[in-house]
Amino acid sequence: MKRKMIFLFSIFMLISAPTFAASPTIETVQASVDTIWVMIAAILVFFMHAGFAMVEAGFTRSKNTLNILMKNFLTVAIASVLYFLIGYGIMFGTSFNGVIGTDGFILANVENIGFFLFQAVFAATCATIISGAVAERMKLQSYLLLTIIMTGIIYPVVGHWIWGGGWLSKLGFVDFAGSSVVHLTGAAAALTTVFFLGARIGKYSEKGVNAIPGHNIPIGALGVFILWFGWFGFNGGSSLVADPSLVPHVITTTLLAASGAIISSAFYTQIRFNRIDASLTLNGALGGLVGITAGCANVSIFGSIIIGLVAGIILVEAVRFIDVKAKIDDPVGAIAVHGICGIWGTLAVGLFDVSSGLFYGGGASLLLVQLTGVLSVIGWTVLTSGGLVYILKKAFGIRVSHEEEIAGLDFAEHGSSAYELNETIFDSKSTPTAPFGKDLVERLNGLGSSETVNKTLH
Amino acid sequence: MKRKMIFLFSIFMLISAPTFAASPTIETVQASVDTIWVMIAAILVFFMHAGFAMVEAGFTRSKNTLNILMKNFLTVAIASVLYFLIGYGIMFGTSFNGVIGTDGFILANVENIGFFLFQAVFAATCATIISGAVAERMKLQSYLLLTIIMTGIIYPVVGHWIWGGGWLSKLGFVDFAGSSVVHLTGAAAALTTVFFLGARIGKYSEKGVNAIPGHNIPIGALGVFILWFGWFGFNGGSSLVADPSLVPHVITTTLLAASGAIISSAFYTQIRFNRIDASLTLNGALGGLVGITAGCANVSIFGSIIIGLVAGIILVEAVRFIDVKAKIDDPVGAIAVHGICGIWGTLAVGLFDVSSGLFYGGGASLLLVQLTGVLSVIGWTVLTSGGLVYILKKAFGIRVSHEEEIAGLDFAEHGSSAYELNETIFDSKSTPTAPFGKDLVERLNGLGSSETVNKTLH
Amino acid sequence: MKRKMIFLFSIFMLISAPTFAASPTIETVQASVDTIWVMIAAILVFFMHAGFAMVEAGFTRSKNTLNILMKNFLTVAIASVLYFLIGYGIMFGTSFNGVIGTDGFILANVENIGFFLFQAVFAATCATIISGAVAERMKLQSYLLLTIIMTGIIYPVVGHWIWGGGWLSKLGFVDFAGSSVVHLTGAAAALTTVFFLGARIGKYSEKGVNAIPGHNIPIGALGVFILWFGWFGFNGGSSLVADPSLVPHVITTTLLAASGAIISSAFYTQIRFNRIDASLTLNGALGGLVGITAGCANVSIFGSIIIGLVAGIILVEAVRFIDVKAKIDDPVGAIAVHGICGIWGTLAVGLFDVSSGLFYGGGASLLLVQLTGVLSVIGWTVLTSGGLVYILKKAFGIRVSHEEEIAGLDFAEHGSSAYELNETIFDSKSTPTAPFGKDLVERLNGLGSSETVNKTLH
Repeated sequence: MKRKMIFLFSIFMLISAPTFAASPTIETVQASVDTIWVMIAAILVFFMHAGFAMVEAGFTRSKNTLNILMKNFLTVAIASVLYFLIGYGIMFGTSFNGVIGTDGFILANVENIGFFLFQAVFAATCATIISGAVAERMKLQSYLLLTIIMTGIIYPVVGHWIWGGGWLSKLGFVDFAGSSVVHLTGAAAALTTVFFLGARIGKYSEKGVNAIPGHNIPIGALGVFILWFGWFGFNGGSSLVADPSLVPHVITTTLLAASGAIISSAFYTQIRFNRIDASLTLNGALGGLVGITAGCANVSIFGSIIIGLVAGIILVEAVRFIDVKAKIDDPVGAIAVHGICGIWGTLAVGLFDVSSGLFYGGGASLLLVQLTGVLSVIGWTVLTSGGLVYILKKAFGIRVSHEEEIAGLDFAEHGSSAYELNETIFDSKSTPTAPFGKDLVERLNGLGSSETVNKTLH
Repeated sequence: MKRKMIFLFSIFMLISAPTFAASPTIETVQASVDTIWVMIAAILVFFMHAGFAMVEAGFTRSKNTLNILMKNFLTVAIASVLYFLIGYGIMFGTSFNGVIGTDGFILANVENIGFFLFQAVFAATCATIISGAVAERMKLQSYLLLTIIMTGIIYPVVGHWIWGGGWLSKLGFVDFAGSSVVHLTGAAAALTTVFFLGARIGKYSEKGVNAIPGHNIPIGALGVFILWFGWFGFNGGSSLVADPSLVPHVITTTLLAASGAIISSAFYTQIRFNRIDASLTLNGALGGLVGITAGCANVSIFGSIIIGLVAGIILVEAVRFIDVKAKIDDPVGAIAVHGICGIWGTLAVGLFDVSSGLFYGGGASLLLVQLTGVLSVIGWTVLTSGGLVYILKKAFGIRVSHEEEIAGLDFAEHGSSAYELNETIFDSKSTPTAPFGKDLVERLNGLGSSETVNKTLH
Repeated sequence: MKRKMIFLFSIFMLISAPTFAASPTIETVQASVDTIWVMIAAILVFFMHAGFAMVEAGFTRSKNTLNILMKNFLTVAIASVLYFLIGYGIMFGTSFNGVIGTDGFILANVENIGFFLFQAVFAATCATIISGAVAERMKLQSYLLLTIIMTGIIYPVVGHWIWGGGWLSKLGFVDFAGSSVVHLTGAAAALTTVFFLGARIGKYSEKGVNAIPGHNIPIGALGVFILWFGWFGFNGGSSLVADPSLVPHVITTTLLAASGAIISSAFYTQIRFNRIDASLTLNGALGGLVGITAGCANVSIFGSIIIGLVAGIILVEAVRFIDVKAKIDDPVGAIAVHGICGIWGTLAVGLFDVSSGLFYGGGASLLLVQLTGVLSVIGWTVLTSGGLVYILKKAFGIRVSHEEEIAGLDFAEHGSSAYELNETIFDSKSTPTAPFGKDLVERLNGLGSSETVNKTLH
């Protein structure tokens, strides 16, 4: 015990609070500006989790809302701690043959804590992409195990290849803020998990494909705005310094790509379905953002608008294809947004990069490197996440029971509801009838809960 | 085709991504700080659109929510692109007789992209003010055409007069962050459009004025908080540099004016209506913010509190007058908030400006200039937007049909609903009866939608 | 009248808008960076009020939502103005024997307006903590009087002792960002007020304790995310300068403590109640944030994770104890979150401070000082707020009538509802029956409201 305490103490001492600098020099002031910018960007990226939570809650049914919220909070929490313990070292530690980092775990000997922080909130973003695709049917427990491996190993390895000095970065692969590193990695793992998980009950029947509309689009739309807001930090902070011309350029391309995608997805759905489809347009905005993420610093402003316009149309067709043709049930469209638009964004750099893109006379070499990166990221992620999910499925099961899915995960996994059972403002005489089977209620109540309080509605 | 490609390429090359600076000097570090501050302010202003969307959605009925959300997203998107293509050049290009800018379109030869970005999010703000006033009855298509002209021409011309070195700025007109430029311009166009559009069905009857309460005040209140939050960037960023005494002053006057307005509108409604009215108090906060926008850098802290206190009372009376006396149907109170309080804020500079205001011994000359500005902005905006809306009304119609308005624009224009049709948690046996006429459903379905999926509720 | 005007004018002149600096030096650039950072932090702290409003609205019943929203808006407004008039002077004015500040009222002779602003948004935070605990039953009027005294006197005195150079700061008491100054002070006043106020009708019956679930957990969860987002400014800005190593350290400990608390509260509720409890986990996040607030700059990263893990478990037990054992009705868990976790956070500095904490070989002296501070803050706050609430209770009454509480404060105090009375999308034939007693409606209508408009549902 005493030895353990001493070990812990020595770790505490290692990572201690710093002291103030002496009188300022140009270098220390520049360091202040750079640090403050990256910190603000990190805070904005953190806030994207509020956006993910609102999008995922809003675009699914009310009976699964608490569960989705819990998944989002626990993802941020687990990802932050895991990335501190293991992930950062794997991603940015001394490279072993360009494949994996080997030191810097628990930030030992790491000086730039601001850089760690910015990267930590990115890791959480990658993991949370999965939660939308597996919503309304995946066991919380299995999801959390997947999150641990994603943020501890799978994502950091991809990050090492591309941002940590690994083999893809040496090939000249360009992914300024993570169309591939973050979004495609998350979406590839999401697709793999959904493959093992299957569609929600009632999604596909003999009669065709059933749309299962979200229960609260206003909070979903708010989530999209929050994500866009945070994305300015996601892309802008990836400059890592407060460069007075690069940062405005990146923020401008981010604004205009999303704008282009909103316009194209809205008008494309008008042409395709005879009405402006609200959820496809909201997802279109996100598709445009994912699309510009890789190239936001390397393409021109015109290029960013075109990348966005294309992303908006790709998004609409991708959602339709995945949902209707491939019969892959992704409740919030995460695979289309982060996966397909992530691929588009990564390849678009090969076309629109102002110094070496195909459209700028740079030939196809960058495009081929980008394609190599895309395939490598997909390959690694599908294999590792697939292996893990397969094991989880065999070992614990990854899906809630039929009965629990019908009753809703809020009741089944959290014993509660996200909304007032009956708005008190309605006639208080009409008690709502429980939509849950009596058996389920009794079984859950019998699980030995020490909860002794009663529930009342008034 | 080839010639087109070359043309596009040359444009791409024109607006390329910048390169990093060499070793820092005091001037480059100062540029970094200034840029970072204006970028953060721009990001905050961008986020105001989430606030507008939530306010407008919350203060209207649930059957029109998707439509309002779409209007807000499309406004940001269209405004950003239009301002890049045309608006910025008209506003800040080389002046033609102080009336209109003549170059800088598509940012050709524009170096300070950060300044463009900050101005672009302002343009979107001006346009979105209209969407609240015309909510629940205006055709999306006509609204979008109006948005294009507003952000491409009408607003940039006003901006040129006041911020682009035009004739009003030469007169000495003071509008630090846009009480007139942004808010009054938006509100004047909103009033004009509502004039041609008319009131919502059921708003005014022979028996009197009917209040049509909003469907979700909590998200409306959240929207007000988001707007206030963003307003610190709106006013604070208008300094355009990270001045260590000006920026805190501006943020403090912004905080205290809004606080004053909340207090006065709450207590004034208590006196006037025997209860603290929640929506008038929320609008009071916004009225205080609009009121301080022109003078936030030029008035004292005490002055800002008084401007806010007065704005809160003006707001309450303005809403009552517009709604009850003038019988102008403005669902969210946008004309009172942005128009009447915008006029008050602009004139208040003439009273409270610490160097030349009437109350500071500066005489009435500034007040007269401010009045001239107000009248000019109203005149120009009413004429141009009125002409446009008149044409739109004759050409396409600007209002949805009676049947569509009753059914709600969400169903009529987007074929969907913002909320779960029936919370699954309620008794699943009671199917909600469709509130839409059967004819409308069939007509809409018959429009050739390629949508083949079914909708299910469980 | 004229003399008054001259008096006002001289005050206006005192606090005037500043002028621009000349050519930049290292010192002015550093001042710019520091100021910008503190301003951004203040804006983030301001936004925490949106978080408080959403948490409090979401975790209570829909019939009291408008009232809670109004309490939150009015708290920010009153606190900002009162802190400007009186509070700042008491907190940071020239000290009278280390007990109270004696000058700097209305910012007379105060140069650093940025510092004032940052402190003003803190004052509002302290006051708003009370609103959650007294929700659903306290009279708005009495609550507002309490807010005035809290932000004008009670909180500033505590602040003077600890941050204003008072006696506790001279003892060496450490509270970097306010676990005690802000959170414990607010919670102690909340507890005292609830003592005089009593539990909500129906909360405690002979059969036991009744859970009264919140009506909208998604907006509550959004509120928690907003609070966490703002907390990075709360803790990070408390450095008061843009120190490039201190700021990232503080933000990292803030992220990881909250993450630790989410993990521990989620898993602890799983063990304790056989399910992950959503509201306790959300409150766990807040408990972790309160817990790290005192020590965020002084503890190691590992220390922050441990402080968070412990805070999460303490929170769960504290909520249970307060709710079930002590039978204190705190609808949103504010006393446990801000009070118990505030005490934990303050004492934890005595254990984990890397230079003088008990676990770092510093002995128990700091811990004793921390304990002294905790007891002093509780003693002062309970006595003063208790005296005030006692007087308010005797003079005006602090609780709404039984009838009003059953009907809901929205109807009783604001004559309106936070949500559409009946979603228009439901069958429009079934008019909702009013849940309010007929007597109450008539009495309220008879109060002389000049409101003549009718209400309609379509």
